[in-house]
Amino acid sequence: MEKANPSEEPVETETIYSGKVIEVVKDVEKLPNGKIVVREIVRHPGAVAMVPLLGDYIIMVRQFRKACDRVLLEIPAGTLRGGEEPEECARRELIEETGYAAGRLERMFHCFLAPGYSSEIVHVYLATDLSQTEQHVEEDEFIDVVKIDLATALQMIGRNEIEDAKSISGILYLKQYLNGK
Amino acid sequence: MEKANPSEEPVETETIYSGKVIEVVKDVEKLPNGKIVVREIVRHPGAVAMVPLLGDYIIMVRQFRKACDRVLLEIPAGTLRGGEEPEECARRELIEETGYAAGRLERMFHCFLAPGYSSEIVHVYLATDLSQTEQHVEEDEFIDVVKIDLATALQMIGRNEIEDAKSISGILYLKQYLNGK
Repeated sequence: MEKANPSEEPVETETIYSGKVIEVVKDVEKLPNGKIVVREIVRHPGAVAMVPLLGDYIIMVRQFRKACDRVLLEIPAGTLRGGEEPEECARRELIEETGYAAGRLERMFHCFLAPGYSSEIVHVYLATDLSQTEQHVEEDEFIDVVKIDLATALQMIGRNEIEDAKSISGILYLKQYLNGK
Repeated sequence: MEKANPSEEPVETETIYSGKVIEVVKDVEKLPNGKIVVREIVRHPGAVAMVPLLGDYIIMVRQFRKACDRVLLEIPAGTLRGGEEPEECARRELIEETGYAAGRLERMFHCFLAPGYSSEIVHVYLATDLSQTEQHVEEDEFIDVVKIDLATALQMIGRNEIEDAKSISGILYLKQYLNGK
């Protein structure tokens, strides 16, 4: 069997687009079998997501997602700013999106969202010891804050009413590994 | 509180890049508050992923992912071809990537991977009644097939040795909702 890590040899990289958040590049690579392949890659600065727990309730956000053309119910999340540490970003985004400040942030896991073409990594935290401050979303964000108890959230995942991968991962991870802590 | 679905009004769309798999567009939208906002969107044809169960074992794939610059352990997955039904794609990709044919495919859920900027939806199946045929990956794919029992896979998610969102979601979904069926 051929090895999984073929040490692809970079031939050239062409930047197609540099945007506000993402950059699109075309990487030409030489495979170990000599074949030349072009890989389209979206470069993303990385992100954070939080499962904020207030008693038995998870604080979630509901917003219209243009890319998916629908309203999604998700755990709070946000994109890393240049040089920002994931934990710092998680504290900031939780306050901005939900109005809750986390007394305690516990790293659960990280994950890649779309490894076939995107570099995006998301660092996922459990946020507890919450205290209410004030929500202050950016001017292009319209976000409803929703409290859903864990049992209901699990039913909603089972019925696929929660359709966002990081939210499904984060809530099921909490249930599988941390529930009862 | 402002509503989550502001019925953004499209002003114009500019195609930045049309590639093999993805298309990048810049959508100019008018928000309900009158503000004009530019959204960078990656359009993707959609994908499938499968948790293939052979007794207590999950058939997984290990491959180098250029976008993430590392080798990832994932459940098998693939991109929808034009006009292809997700279930048809799941049967095809499972054989191509792992060499196993599914006697039974059961839809578990769908999820959006990166709703902030990508349209990609992944349809996730449980694949059972597996029979061995022949792996035939595409010429730019170098994939190792790995059998991991469910208990070990759960430990690997807990230790974050599985780092792919669709794989974490699919395996934890199986454990939470279908284990014992």
